[in-house]
Amino acid sequence: MLRIFAIAVLGLAAAWAGPTWAYDGIVEKKTFSMATYTTQGGRTIKDVKVGWESYGKLNDARDNVILVTHFFSGNSHAAGRYAATDAAPGYWDGIIGAGKPIDTDRFFVISSDTLVNLSTKDPRTITTGPASIDPDTGKPYGMRFPVVTMRDFVEVQKALLESLGIRKLHAVVGASMGALQAFEWAAAHPAMVERIVPVIGGAEADAFLVGWLDIWASPIRLDPNWKGGDFYGGAEPVEGLALALKIVTLHARAAGWADRTFGRKWADPAKNPADAMGNRFAIEDTLDKAATARAKTSDANHFLYLAKANQLFSAGHAASLEEGLKPVKARTLLIPASSDLVLPPYLAARAATILKANGTPVETVTIEGDGGHLDGVLAIAKAGDAIKAFLAR
Amino acid sequence: MLRIFAIAVLGLAAAWAGPTWAYDGIVEKKTFSMATYTTQGGRTIKDVKVGWESYGKLNDARDNVILVTHFFSGNSHAAGRYAATDAAPGYWDGIIGAGKPIDTDRFFVISSDTLVNLSTKDPRTITTGPASIDPDTGKPYGMRFPVVTMRDFVEVQKALLESLGIRKLHAVVGASMGALQAFEWAAAHPAMVERIVPVIGGAEADAFLVGWLDIWASPIRLDPNWKGGDFYGGAEPVEGLALALKIVTLHARAAGWADRTFGRKWADPAKNPADAMGNRFAIEDTLDKAATARAKTSDANHFLYLAKANQLFSAGHAASLEEGLKPVKARTLLIPASSDLVLPPYLAARAATILKANGTPVETVTIEGDGGHLDGVLAIAKAGDAIKAFLAR
Repeated sequence: MLRIFAIAVLGLAAAWAGPTWAYDGIVEKKTFSMATYTTQGGRTIKDVKVGWESYGKLNDARDNVILVTHFFSGNSHAAGRYAATDAAPGYWDGIIGAGKPIDTDRFFVISSDTLVNLSTKDPRTITTGPASIDPDTGKPYGMRFPVVTMRDFVEVQKALLESLGIRKLHAVVGASMGALQAFEWAAAHPAMVERIVPVIGGAEADAFLVGWLDIWASPIRLDPNWKGGDFYGGAEPVEGLALALKIVTLHARAAGWADRTFGRKWADPAKNPADAMGNRFAIEDTLDKAATARAKTSDANHFLYLAKANQLFSAGHAASLEEGLKPVKARTLLIPASSDLVLPPYLAARAATILKANGTPVETVTIEGDGGHLDGVLAIAKAGDAIKAFLAR
Repeated sequence: MLRIFAIAVLGLAAAWAGPTWAYDGIVEKKTFSMATYTTQGGRTIKDVKVGWESYGKLNDARDNVILVTHFFSGNSHAAGRYAATDAAPGYWDGIIGAGKPIDTDRFFVISSDTLVNLSTKDPRTITTGPASIDPDTGKPYGMRFPVVTMRDFVEVQKALLESLGIRKLHAVVGASMGALQAFEWAAAHPAMVERIVPVIGGAEADAFLVGWLDIWASPIRLDPNWKGGDFYGGAEPVEGLALALKIVTLHARAAGWADRTFGRKWADPAKNPADAMGNRFAIEDTLDKAATARAKTSDANHFLYLAKANQLFSAGHAASLEEGLKPVKARTLLIPASSDLVLPPYLAARAATILKANGTPVETVTIEGDGGHLDGVLAIAKAGDAIKAFLAR
């Protein structure tokens, strides 16, 4: 009753965006293990582990499942808290929970950490990648880890779902790299996927994105501590990794956000940037500090493998995107962000054109804003009504 | 007669874009020297030298002058050839020459290399900056060179013009960083500047651009050969500089260009990027090769000083941009490019709003295209009619 009142007074978007309606169960991070996994490229990895978590209850028919696929620098912590004292809930807590657009009173929502997840040093992320120990050598794989693709991410998720007896997905929902996985799920396993909600994504990395991903990754290779990827046990390429993360952070934003947040303010009011080469603007300083902090929980080689997986992405991995998307049966809700510079709305539009030509039902709802790519994570509540309605159809 | 026929048949834009009507005088690079120059920051530099060149004839009244200000990685070679055998003419040869929009039959067109010009190792670029020998120490300045701003670039150009007896500019025309100089000219010396044509520019670096310029510059500082700028005489930070130039090159383009030029083609048709971490896409390989080649003629410290000058830019350098633009009297033709991601059209629009509120006549002509920022250099012929008409008013 109180909830209904609050929604009526504040408006749905405001209610979803606030912490008031956070998923209120305590979230538990679990581990899914496979003795072996063979990549699309034909290489077999032993002792594969990925983390996962879930919100809501799996019904008896096991057909109320929504898979949430995570973004480049994210993990499976999409909603809720591990402990009541956690500073913040999962990244999409605004739309996942009881009575929210992805309603945990109705759906069993599950998310898993991908292979080669970036955040190897975050104790709540469980992944297998170049920083993992190769059981055959007792040493970290480094750049000897096999190339992996979105399809590999999908196949590991599928094995996890099958371990829970799940053979049908009500929807796959994901932002950014999560959107790429949603497309790949729909193309690879059309009989299993009823709906997809690709947020701030596209069905293929175009040449411009391939080039940008290379630029994201390049500072790591430039760092003398990278050493061809064999840095484990010694000084790590933290400066190169921090610069890579800095580029991602700015690229994932837009001019309006930068203006509102920083303008031309100086990092230190006593140090005019015009007075010395080392005096800086606030935006430079803040981006550096944020990137340095993020680098502490991340792995440089994992970054390179993730960039590669994104570059290689073309849904269905066929001779053309048209071919690759042909098997898709999933009803599709595309949610681009108007100011997105990483996966701009034209990529969603391109996917929509092909899907529509195939007769697949496609809707598009654009998040209007000036926050850039990240609007797909931080301003997702703006698309809450559309997601709720889409999942109900 | 032949010319008139060709224009009628081909259309004006095509005629201007082609080499047929190239400036046909032989261009001579000259040097302008100042015993001392004192920066806006109050530091005095000795033995300042900048290169310059001109096309067309200065009239007796010395009032037929168009100053062309160059872009970040450019120099004063805006038109014509140094020798008949030159592979290519200056960068805006399509619009500068006899009978062209910037008509050398009528105007004396002059351009100078800026202070801290990037291309210190290009024998046709003459500049003073961190790579120059400090007469007081007999060693290169390195990072001890004073911070310089757009205003400093303008003041050195003004001294050059005054040495030629020029006290009036029919127009200042420039692309990108050249547009910033045009705004600065109009704000700093309103009585001297009758018209400005800022192409792909804005009147102030906003926070987003300040952040991007920092990202452009960051790989240089990451290169262990940079050594705080004291690399002269030893191994130079060519890899960091090449990465900096690679970022600039992609940032100055757009998705349509990348799609048309590369698509998802592989660098080597025998090496599928999915097969190995080292196998690459064509766009990655081409950008790397181009950047490595450009790094050979560039200086890493000069890059840092140029990035700083661009970050510091706010026309008129007043408490607000409104204040800074208040003195401007120059009739203004703004030419943004629709797909520009470096200095997007909103920056030109912001300048136009302020100038109009001041009563300054402003026109805007947008170059429509999908080539990004560089459309302001490579597709300038599309605005040829507008430039010609504007200069005639």
